[in-house]
Amino acid sequence: MEPEHKLKHQLYIIIFGTHTRAGRAFDITVIIAILLSLLVLILHSLQGVATKWDRELQLAEYFFTGVFTLEYLLRLYCSPKPKAYATSFYGVVDLLAILPTYLALIFPSASFMGVIRLLRVMRIFRILKLVRYLQDSNILLRSLLQSRRKIFVFFSSVAVLVTIFGALIYVIEGPSNGFTSIPQSIYWAIVTITTVGYGDLVPSTALGKAVASLTMLLGYSILAVPTGIITAELSQEISAHRSLVKCPNCSRAGHESDALHCKYCGSELATPEARVVSEDNHSGANHSKASHS
Amino acid sequence: MEPEHKLKHQLYIIIFGTHTRAGRAFDITVIIAILLSLLVLILHSLQGVATKWDRELQLAEYFFTGVFTLEYLLRLYCSPKPKAYATSFYGVVDLLAILPTYLALIFPSASFMGVIRLLRVMRIFRILKLVRYLQDSNILLRSLLQSRRKIFVFFSSVAVLVTIFGALIYVIEGPSNGFTSIPQSIYWAIVTITTVGYGDLVPSTALGKAVASLTMLLGYSILAVPTGIITAELSQEISAHRSLVKCPNCSRAGHESDALHCKYCGSELATPEARVVSEDNHSGANHSKASHS
Amino acid sequence: MEPEHKLKHQLYIIIFGTHTRAGRAFDITVIIAILLSLLVLILHSLQGVATKWDRELQLAEYFFTGVFTLEYLLRLYCSPKPKAYATSFYGVVDLLAILPTYLALIFPSASFMGVIRLLRVMRIFRILKLVRYLQDSNILLRSLLQSRRKIFVFFSSVAVLVTIFGALIYVIEGPSNGFTSIPQSIYWAIVTITTVGYGDLVPSTALGKAVASLTMLLGYSILAVPTGIITAELSQEISAHRSLVKCPNCSRAGHESDALHCKYCGSELATPEARVVSEDNHSGANHSKASHS
Amino acid sequence: MEPEHKLKHQLYIIIFGTHTRAGRAFDITVIIAILLSLLVLILHSLQGVATKWDRELQLAEYFFTGVFTLEYLLRLYCSPKPKAYATSFYGVVDLLAILPTYLALIFPSASFMGVIRLLRVMRIFRILKLVRYLQDSNILLRSLLQSRRKIFVFFSSVAVLVTIFGALIYVIEGPSNGFTSIPQSIYWAIVTITTVGYGDLVPSTALGKAVASLTMLLGYSILAVPTGIITAELSQEISAHRSLVKCPNCSRAGHESDALHCKYCGSELATPEARVVSEDNHSGANHSKASHS
Repeated sequence: MEPEHKLKHQLYIIIFGTHTRAGRAFDITVIIAILLSLLVLILHSLQGVATKWDRELQLAEYFFTGVFTLEYLLRLYCSPKPKAYATSFYGVVDLLAILPTYLALIFPSASFMGVIRLLRVMRIFRILKLVRYLQDSNILLRSLLQSRRKIFVFFSSVAVLVTIFGALIYVIEGPSNGFTSIPQSIYWAIVTITTVGYGDLVPSTALGKAVASLTMLLGYSILAVPTGIITAELSQEISAHRSLVKCPNCSRAGHESDALHCKYCGSELATPEARVVSEDNHSGANHSKASHS
Repeated sequence: MEPEHKLKHQLYIIIFGTHTRAGRAFDITVIIAILLSLLVLILHSLQGVATKWDRELQLAEYFFTGVFTLEYLLRLYCSPKPKAYATSFYGVVDLLAILPTYLALIFPSASFMGVIRLLRVMRIFRILKLVRYLQDSNILLRSLLQSRRKIFVFFSSVAVLVTIFGALIYVIEGPSNGFTSIPQSIYWAIVTITTVGYGDLVPSTALGKAVASLTMLLGYSILAVPTGIITAELSQEISAHRSLVKCPNCSRAGHESDALHCKYCGSELATPEARVVSEDNHSGANHSKASHS
Repeated sequence: MEPEHKLKHQLYIIIFGTHTRAGRAFDITVIIAILLSLLVLILHSLQGVATKWDRELQLAEYFFTGVFTLEYLLRLYCSPKPKAYATSFYGVVDLLAILPTYLALIFPSASFMGVIRLLRVMRIFRILKLVRYLQDSNILLRSLLQSRRKIFVFFSSVAVLVTIFGALIYVIEGPSNGFTSIPQSIYWAIVTITTVGYGDLVPSTALGKAVASLTMLLGYSILAVPTGIITAELSQEISAHRSLVKCPNCSRAGHESDALHCKYCGSELATPEARVVSEDNHSGANHSKASHS
Repeated sequence: MEPEHKLKHQLYIIIFGTHTRAGRAFDITVIIAILLSLLVLILHSLQGVATKWDRELQLAEYFFTGVFTLEYLLRLYCSPKPKAYATSFYGVVDLLAILPTYLALIFPSASFMGVIRLLRVMRIFRILKLVRYLQDSNILLRSLLQSRRKIFVFFSSVAVLVTIFGALIYVIEGPSNGFTSIPQSIYWAIVTITTVGYGDLVPSTALGKAVASLTMLLGYSILAVPTGIITAELSQEISAHRSLVKCPNCSRAGHESDALHCKYCGSELATPEARVVSEDNHSGANHSKASHS
């Protein structure tokens, strides 16, 4: 192995891996940098703070952009497949985290104040860099994905309902009561059916109130549907995770995590220690030696 | 088969079927036409747009009405049982989608502005034509239907509760605080118990606030009931769908995961090992060789 | 059996029973009378209607009070245990449904307007008479009862939380921002934690908004607890209802409602017809002959 | 046993225990004292009451502080490990319940009005003393603890979402519509995504309303996730508690309902017939003879 290749591989283990001490230190540094840069951005949006500390915040911003640029270049350099990284979700997010600051430097700041503000706020997408470090998110995402067709059907039904109720209230209440157009009325229907209820648009007529009541009660019971879907999927996801141990004798799974004997034929199951390892295994690491010893 | 009958049948397969290439093309055309016609309707409701593009929107509206009229007539023509189609849910929706425009032509537009607006907005029911294309809606509908008696009991309980709380707040707060009548107070109770909380009607007295707090907490815990009902039904619906093992004798599925014998005819089911493989199979790949080796 | 006793028994079957034709007719008459009398009460609360139709509504009210008085006396007369009926939930509700009108007659109407209005609105409790006719309410009530200790714990936790958050916001925002006292602030906390959000009391300071955000997010995740409790209880309630059939051979239960054979040993289960009868049986009726034939 | 040690032990049983008559009387006295002292605090916050009964409320406050001080000292005295008690959750809460009153005595009341009010309100933490007496709270806490990692992931996702939506609405609506800074906009996003919807900050532009609608619908479906997590955990917790069959060999419970062998030691479990009887038993009656016959 040439020295450059070796360096690349070591960097890869530190930057993309999470199991070495150096890798964990790198991750924590990045997380702190993300949180601090978000703090800078938020402080910059506060009127009083921005006028007083504008220079310091700008400098901090350049510093963090430098840090994230370095991180991005390092990831590109040491990744075995740089193109795959650059086009992946995390690659795009990492690019988005540094791009706005560079774009803001290019545009003459005097002329396009709106663009500058937009670019500054776009830096908030840096928060997506944190998603990389959320580990249990897989189980949640998987159960959302598995029920994506039902969720699509659910959202389509909600779309149909809010359109119909929006049109109804538009006809009943009319522009004089604030329901000036169908999109405005659909906005009201969404505010109502999700039980948000801002109160910026409320029905005034008796018939309008009756329709609003119906919308609320419908929203109320419809709320049950996505909850039901996700609960059902999640229940199965969790119980599936619990029952991965198979009986060595009768090969039947479905044992609880604390079972020592097969509940169907009574023969001993794998020892808990071995099992803990095998559960670790299934998340990708290779401790196979430990389980054989 | 006579030529006319053959044409009718081919049209039937294209228009009512979804499996041929032409059938799918037809469906997609109709969906796009529905969405565009809804867009026209929504644009027409916007003040600024309506005054500027009134003529163009009116023409687009006539065009889409023509398209849907053609679709309706074709469906009537090629359906083997035209009467059954015309009186079915989708038949009525298809008629409702074109009727308002024709009615608007009949009424002299100067005299009945309200009717015209009503008829125009009624075209929104075209969105119901989309329901035909939502496929997974069956499982949701079925679990709603199966729990319809419990949902009826639930809504009756909500009706009883909002009536009582509405009457209570009406007595406590009285007309001077905006609670001018019992229906108005029931409207408040619905807004509160569903946690919408517009804020257009709020209790002012200490006792009224106490009653309101009770209403909210009740609404909060009652929210759990429909969710629970639908989740429980949905769980069973989903797990029933999951047990895809078929009886080798009577070919009926729906057995629980730990069943050894077909619950319909009593013959032995496939052994667990074979079943695990067949469950893998069902995700599309054909590893049937692996299970025989 | 003496004629009076016979008449009493026949009346009992008609009034308290639901299985005879006359009994069902009686029930439907009472339900219609309840709904109409509620309509009269609601109309009486509307300003415009009350001044115009005061006399007619008053007469209708006397008529319905007469009907319910007759019903109450008949129930007292034909009940085998009149005292038990009078002190039961339904007995008290039936008395409450007629009492206010009689009390209103006793009080001189000119002097105590408030009392009169209170008595009139109290007639709304007639709606509780409807609860008798909600049949599936048992399963809901039972699962609520079974989890009553957890619900008590839940409500106590909510009480602790809203007290603490109410006190916090009271200290932070203070009387100048509308949080004039601790009860007022607890009211705000309830409005917020239940996600009702009227908007009549909102935090103005930055710290207050942070505390409010925390309250909301807590309310949001706490919402999950009662839902979870009731869903879990309800699931078990429902699945318990499904698995009452026992295998005649191996005596194991837990079969799905459409199973014909025991899923453990394969022997035939009771025929579905017999089973439907036995399920009816378990709700108290005695059709035992039918199941033996 | 020396007399002092004996007294200590007896006090320990009364104060920390709940099974003796004296212990229960002690607990009830403390609960009543807590509730009364909370009442005093709440009355003190009411303007009218405070000016009129200031002296009496102050005296009551000193009395309850005395009671709780005595309780705290007794607990410290009789506890076998006073240090462990003092640093435990309940020990800290018991100290917090009395500290503010003493601190208020030290500070000269004229100079630091704000501190006095803060100290007075801090006495509300006495309500936490009640948590000791909530018994079923364990099962709720345990299921919350078991899903703490998923809850952390959930809250992180919510944090990411409200930051992004807050930044979006800040760019779209801008300071002129009330969205003066990013924290303010994040506060709006939390109010919206939790469906609280105060209505103090609402979008005015069409694009802002579209983004708000998206936020609501997302909040609406995200609501399902924590509910699902807790329901799934709770279901398993409850069903684990329900399988009360004990292994005749190792006496451990927690077997699934269809288990034939003890999952811990492998010995055969009781036959289903016996088990059905023993499940009936568990509701308190002792039909042990029936199961042997």
